Amino acid sequence: MPLTKSWVGSANAADHPFPLNNLPYGVFSTDTLAPRCGVAIGDMILDVARAEAVGQIALDGGPFFGAPAWNALMEAGPGVWGALRAQLTDLLAEGAPARAAVEGFLVPQADARMHLPFRVAEFTDFYAGKHHAQNVGTMFRGPENALPPNWLHIPIGYNGRASSVVVSGTPVRRPWGQLKGPNDDAPRFAPSARFDLELEMGAIVGQPSDEPVTVEEADAMIFGYVLLNDWSARDIQAWEYQPLGPFQAKATATSISPWIVTKDALEPLRVPTPAREVELLPHLRDAGPMLYDIDLAVTLAPEGAAPTEIARTNYREMYYSSAQQLAHHTTAGCPMRVGDLLGSGTISGAEAHQRGSLLELSWGGKDPVALDTGGTRAFLEDGDTLTLHGAARGDGYTVGFGTCAGTLLPALEDPYAR
Amino acid sequence: MPLTKSWVGSANAADHPFPLNNLPYGVFSTDTLAPRCGVAIGDMILDVARAEAVGQIALDGGPFFGAPAWNALMEAGPGVWGALRAQLTDLLAEGAPARAAVEGFLVPQADARMHLPFRVAEFTDFYAGKHHAQNVGTMFRGPENALPPNWLHIPIGYNGRASSVVVSGTPVRRPWGQLKGPNDDAPRFAPSARFDLELEMGAIVGQPSDEPVTVEEADAMIFGYVLLNDWSARDIQAWEYQPLGPFQAKATATSISPWIVTKDALEPLRVPTPAREVELLPHLRDAGPMLYDIDLAVTLAPEGAAPTEIARTNYREMYYSSAQQLAHHTTAGCPMRVGDLLGSGTISGAEAHQRGSLLELSWGGKDPVALDTGGTRAFLEDGDTLTLHGAARGDGYTVGFGTCAGTLLPALEDPYAR
Repeated sequence: MPLTKSWVGSANAADHPFPLNNLPYGVFSTDTLAPRCGVAIGDMILDVARAEAVGQIALDGGPFFGAPAWNALMEAGPGVWGALRAQLTDLLAEGAPARAAVEGFLVPQADARMHLPFRVAEFTDFYAGKHHAQNVGTMFRGPENALPPNWLHIPIGYNGRASSVVVSGTPVRRPWGQLKGPNDDAPRFAPSARFDLELEMGAIVGQPSDEPVTVEEADAMIFGYVLLNDWSARDIQAWEYQPLGPFQAKATATSISPWIVTKDALEPLRVPTPAREVELLPHLRDAGPMLYDIDLAVTLAPEGAAPTEIARTNYREMYYSSAQQLAHHTTAGCPMRVGDLLGSGTISGAEAHQRGSLLELSWGGKDPVALDTGGTRAFLEDGDTLTLHGAARGDGYTVGFGTCAGTLLPALEDPYAR
Repeated sequence: MPLTKSWVGSANAADHPFPLNNLPYGVFSTDTLAPRCGVAIGDMILDVARAEAVGQIALDGGPFFGAPAWNALMEAGPGVWGALRAQLTDLLAEGAPARAAVEGFLVPQADARMHLPFRVAEFTDFYAGKHHAQNVGTMFRGPENALPPNWLHIPIGYNGRASSVVVSGTPVRRPWGQLKGPNDDAPRFAPSARFDLELEMGAIVGQPSDEPVTVEEADAMIFGYVLLNDWSARDIQAWEYQPLGPFQAKATATSISPWIVTKDALEPLRVPTPAREVELLPHLRDAGPMLYDIDLAVTLAPEGAAPTEIARTNYREMYYSSAQQLAHHTTAGCPMRVGDLLGSGTISGAEAHQRGSLLELSWGGKDPVALDTGGTRAFLEDGDTLTLHGAARGDGYTVGFGTCAGTLLPALEDPYAR
């Protein structure tokens, strides 16, 4: 499927992230418009709340778009998701008769402020990139014991904290935590000195389930995807994570990109998971190609300096798809809700520059990463801005995710001062 | 403070769980009344939605009670919590002038169906009972390495799944999961054969926070407490939990008792935590007595048979209070929300019959528990009804929690059959 042209001219460039083939969903506000649903097209946002209010968008079960969240549309189900995409394509395609009726509802992205695009019901993070698990395992347990015995059989996941999910652009405060290095006699309470990023994709659950679902059913429940940075305090994690997993190390913030790229937009870009080293049990087997060919990159900009690209990889490096993760999530009967967010796990490739965290890039801090603007990074420094970039390439067009950025603020001097 | 007498006669017995000194909050419905807020008094429930509608309860920021959840009252804050308790005491005390005005709003508990008393925002479970951690650690790692090195320094916690929290009385279905015993060559997907209970208390967060809070501030944020059974599939857990903690093993269900016993009701029953074996860092130190003297028991009734008491312990056995757990939860800046639920962790005492899980009671299945009605239990069998009981004794009165019960249904024959 080649580029479909829009009457919004900026959308027609082959490398623009938001052509008519994409149509990602966000929540925006301006100086005069309260937060509401919008759809990116080229450099503009279509105010779908107003388009719906005048009847240019009309969907069963609506209105959906005046609220500052896409949850209501998600609840309406895949039939309505498809109907919206079809109506948007009709409204925005080159030569659309409705152009005059909706042109006034376009807002320049440059004038908009972006918000979280949906209410996050619950957040689960996975550990499902094999290169990442192998790298981290090698550092902690040596190459022979790098992968835990269960790793090739289940997508390892743990529950995270929905309240800490923030939209791209939200500053992140370096956390305090209880720390104890291998040579310390006793723990101390201090700001994290090994604060890190994790390059991930987030899958958004758009339909609920009360019983175990198959991989195919899980895939049908997914509404769309975002970029996700699961900020991680490695020194807090090292002390706290045995025996029950990461807790405060992952509780400061998880940033997501503001535009939900729908599963429909990604449909032409499906690719299979990598070859299986051991056969999966039937309930987790691939039901067709359920990954996507999405180029991913991470840039780091020190305060006041230009960014350096510190990593470049691809979502197809994942060992488990989001559909497999979601299917596993339901095996014991765990109810899933509209708005659940599943982090893929850190996405690293086989090569050194393809690693999706500073922990891996600097190999535990031993081999700091050189920045183009001078200096190095073992872990993040105050004032650093981390930006994730993601884009899939179609036939003459791009399905872009935009960016997911956050600037690290210094730790509070005293976290209990009021 | 002795028993305060009520004109609801059943509330005045010294061993009744719901005297005027208690006034726990629930959500109930009847054949004619939709789910709404109610307050237990003796054998009755005061329909506070109707009392509020006619002005017999009048609180700043109301109305609060027509919705089937106590979250709106929680959001109003401790000043309003106190005002409600004072108004309820005035309405229900012996000789109250308003008796005639509200007597018609009493509903027999026997006629009511109980619902989840609040919308659970997020659920966190802790591992903060020392006897439990010592027992489990001894079984898994031997007595020398029983307690993880961090255990005496932080209340170990992990995020759970709010969507799986159910009210007492909801049947629980034995889950399927990926299992691999120590002598198995490969994992298999099968119903859990080691399904267990965990006797816990749940603390309900009634006020939000965006920054780290002290132990004293944390205590002030807690609205009340419930009994909590964190159903656990030990065989799923054994295979999945390394390296990132329990996931599907804890995802089937967590049951809570229907009545929120408020912190105000428990105030006269405060007791300190046990002596510290190592001094806690300042941000986690006790800020006064923050546990409660609450007798707890577990009964197990096979299908069609009478219950056997399998465990008896007390909440004061906890090493960390809920306030300390909540303070720790916020150290890295994790935002807390109204309706967050914190499981205390399994509450075991020093003696064999004081253990709050079958894993401990049967010592990993090696020493099954004998039932009064014949037979034994290493782990739960289909049809078993597990009931938690909890009550604190005041000066001539009881602050009861009622019960938290659930019956184990057999596993689905095929979890993917539709």
